[in-house]
Amino acid sequence: MNRQLHLNLFVFGRGHHEGAWRHPLAPSTSLTDVEHYQALAAMAEKGLLDSLFLADVLAVGDTQGHSPITPLEPITLLAALSATTRHIGLIGTASTTYMEPFNLARQFAALDHLSRGRIGWNIVTSWVNGVEANFGHDHQPPHAERYARAFEFMEVVKGLWDTWADDAVLDDRSAGQYLQPERIAALNHRGAHFQVRGPLNIPASPQRHPVLFQAGSSADGQRFAAQYAEAVFTAQPDLPTAQAFYRSLKQQVHEVGRQPHELLVLPGLSAVVAESDQQAGQLLEELNALTALETGLARLSARFGGHDFSRLPLDLPLSVDDLPNPDGVQAAQSRARVVVELVRSQRPTLRQLLTRLAGARGHYTLAGTPEQIADAMQTWFQNGAADGFNLMPPIMPAMLATFIDEVIPLLQQRGLFRTAYQQHTLRQRYGLARPASRFFG
Amino acid sequence: MNRQLHLNLFVFGRGHHEGAWRHPLAPSTSLTDVEHYQALAAMAEKGLLDSLFLADVLAVGDTQGHSPITPLEPITLLAALSATTRHIGLIGTASTTYMEPFNLARQFAALDHLSRGRIGWNIVTSWVNGVEANFGHDHQPPHAERYARAFEFMEVVKGLWDTWADDAVLDDRSAGQYLQPERIAALNHRGAHFQVRGPLNIPASPQRHPVLFQAGSSADGQRFAAQYAEAVFTAQPDLPTAQAFYRSLKQQVHEVGRQPHELLVLPGLSAVVAESDQQAGQLLEELNALTALETGLARLSARFGGHDFSRLPLDLPLSVDDLPNPDGVQAAQSRARVVVELVRSQRPTLRQLLTRLAGARGHYTLAGTPEQIADAMQTWFQNGAADGFNLMPPIMPAMLATFIDEVIPLLQQRGLFRTAYQQHTLRQRYGLARPASRFFG
Repeated sequence: MNRQLHLNLFVFGRGHHEGAWRHPLAPSTSLTDVEHYQALAAMAEKGLLDSLFLADVLAVGDTQGHSPITPLEPITLLAALSATTRHIGLIGTASTTYMEPFNLARQFAALDHLSRGRIGWNIVTSWVNGVEANFGHDHQPPHAERYARAFEFMEVVKGLWDTWADDAVLDDRSAGQYLQPERIAALNHRGAHFQVRGPLNIPASPQRHPVLFQAGSSADGQRFAAQYAEAVFTAQPDLPTAQAFYRSLKQQVHEVGRQPHELLVLPGLSAVVAESDQQAGQLLEELNALTALETGLARLSARFGGHDFSRLPLDLPLSVDDLPNPDGVQAAQSRARVVVELVRSQRPTLRQLLTRLAGARGHYTLAGTPEQIADAMQTWFQNGAADGFNLMPPIMPAMLATFIDEVIPLLQQRGLFRTAYQQHTLRQRYGLARPASRFFG
Repeated sequence: MNRQLHLNLFVFGRGHHEGAWRHPLAPSTSLTDVEHYQALAAMAEKGLLDSLFLADVLAVGDTQGHSPITPLEPITLLAALSATTRHIGLIGTASTTYMEPFNLARQFAALDHLSRGRIGWNIVTSWVNGVEANFGHDHQPPHAERYARAFEFMEVVKGLWDTWADDAVLDDRSAGQYLQPERIAALNHRGAHFQVRGPLNIPASPQRHPVLFQAGSSADGQRFAAQYAEAVFTAQPDLPTAQAFYRSLKQQVHEVGRQPHELLVLPGLSAVVAESDQQAGQLLEELNALTALETGLARLSARFGGHDFSRLPLDLPLSVDDLPNPDGVQAAQSRARVVVELVRSQRPTLRQLLTRLAGARGHYTLAGTPEQIADAMQTWFQNGAADGFNLMPPIMPAMLATFIDEVIPLLQQRGLFRTAYQQHTLRQRYGLARPASRFFG
């Protein structure tokens, strides 16, 4: 079969545009109401998407006063959605910095059982300033320290998922033998950050390991992704940048001895789809008019670890010197770097920059007809920039519905997207092998 | 309205009897298959039960080789069950010793949103030896230290649940105001075990606090329950013991300034129900014949913190001197004490003791006709021993079905049990007030 696109829905409030929640096309359902998410999941599954994804931040933050994010908790929400869906992959964010590896390994294994093998874990080290104070720390651990812990964390959780052989549960009623103790191994991990004896207290799940996602694109982040990730979400503002990232990451995957196809690159794509160019542009203007300067400033500040941008003039072209050096940013280095590159290449005013980021926080944004969107996706896909996309509809569910009704059929006609669900697990859909147990094969 | 029974289903493997999983009446569904639990939840809801409950142990333990427990994880399983049920309360166990308070508070608030106010939390300090090694500890924290941490943990999580006023989410689209920051408070907790700034990153849930359950009946456990619990699960082998416990606990609740009705006492009840006494006895014998000596010995050993009982003669009457002093047990003091009392009052042989405990691990067990079961429940309920029961069917779902079909109608005829669901939240069903926020009232 030809190589086909992998499409993921990034579930986020009432849409990815900062002004979405106020737009007449946005639903009025409360964002704490599970029905909002059940409806999105059902729609995404009707559209045959590979998966849906929930981001996460472990603090309220300063940006929500004028623009909501998803206020529920990913692990519990995915568990609930596993009961109302059958095919779609379910990817949740969880932090290596603020969770115990035993608890995380266990909850993701449980999710994989509940969903019959549809779970992915988006691995984050939690970069938002202020989160640390909810977990007993006076200062945020530096970028490098968070990654050092993350590397060891992965060894622990992958080890825990390997502690049960597939035949460990014998369930032999006549012999009275439920488990085979010799088919369950201790882990006995003793490292710099963790001591975990194991075994895990849950049998091996359908995928054994959830599909591993990663979204940090700093140097540490890419090194981590090359080692562990099976798919990356990434913010790439244009084709050349995306191609360079794609090439570099696949090369790093190769260098650690893995096959390039074992890591899928999924850039974000936020598309305003309409019947005409003009209508799409009009919708985008309506959305931009609904944003608040202070939300944009708070989000920009968060990316740079709390730097204050509020004294810069709003309507003069920015220069790179107005921004902190991203190498020194201890929060989200790669997200800071996206902004620096934008300023370097386009010299926007602060107001223009905030509007640009309001669209989808620096991800690739498009406004146009279904053909134009499909063309752009095809170009990225066939020219070494993407293995698929992380779809970020500006307004949800309305613009997801348009995408599914108008763009998906074009992709299918071009042979670029499936016309029915085939595989059972998310791993199978991504063409990834089920990991063998390090203890039992 | 007259006082009525509160009935909870304690979901546990294929039933509470150690031999249940091998019995012909037990289902063959895998215990990692969510359908097993969905079927039990649907049946319990059809029977109008108040709630269902999942216990938890954070390690595999030595007892599962010949008798399974529930291998899934409570928080994720309850989230999944929230999507396939509408009325029944959903109670999950989670540990104050091995979870971060911020993560626990958040996941339970999320569950309360997902279920629209049907969540309870069974608070445990994790007594099973060996669990500590999965969380970086070389030795299990002593009983008193676990409880010291638990008391502070409760102050943190209750505080976190109070950080959002009910009107904090304004969602005013025309004004562009999503949150009201002045209606969200920091917690700023700095104690001996925890430093947590807050606020929680999720709006106040329908019940604000989940209903708080507790099951440890040691002196520390009772002091903790009197302070925090709104319902207790407890193992009481007979009526006089249950009456003494009930009286003592309600007195302690009174002494800390709470109303006795603000804490419900729910003893475990494991009933083999059949058309005749004789048939019930026959079923119980079949179950006892399916138990394994080594499972019983491992479970007994775990209660006493790892003490070895395997060298005691099997068929000579035990004396209290054969058992360690429960005051020195750092694991589950109250569960050890139940065994000591059994040995003191009945002088069983070791084999008889293990059989007795195989029924439901020391809980009140009965075998008889529907009338006999209903009579016993009425006696306990009307004579100061119980506000309801934690139902522990020996085989599930078969013996739950019999209980619902045969015993529930008798209780309804006597006016002791509801004939339809009325209230929306679990708190309302228990007659408990929704807690006010300590910050906003």
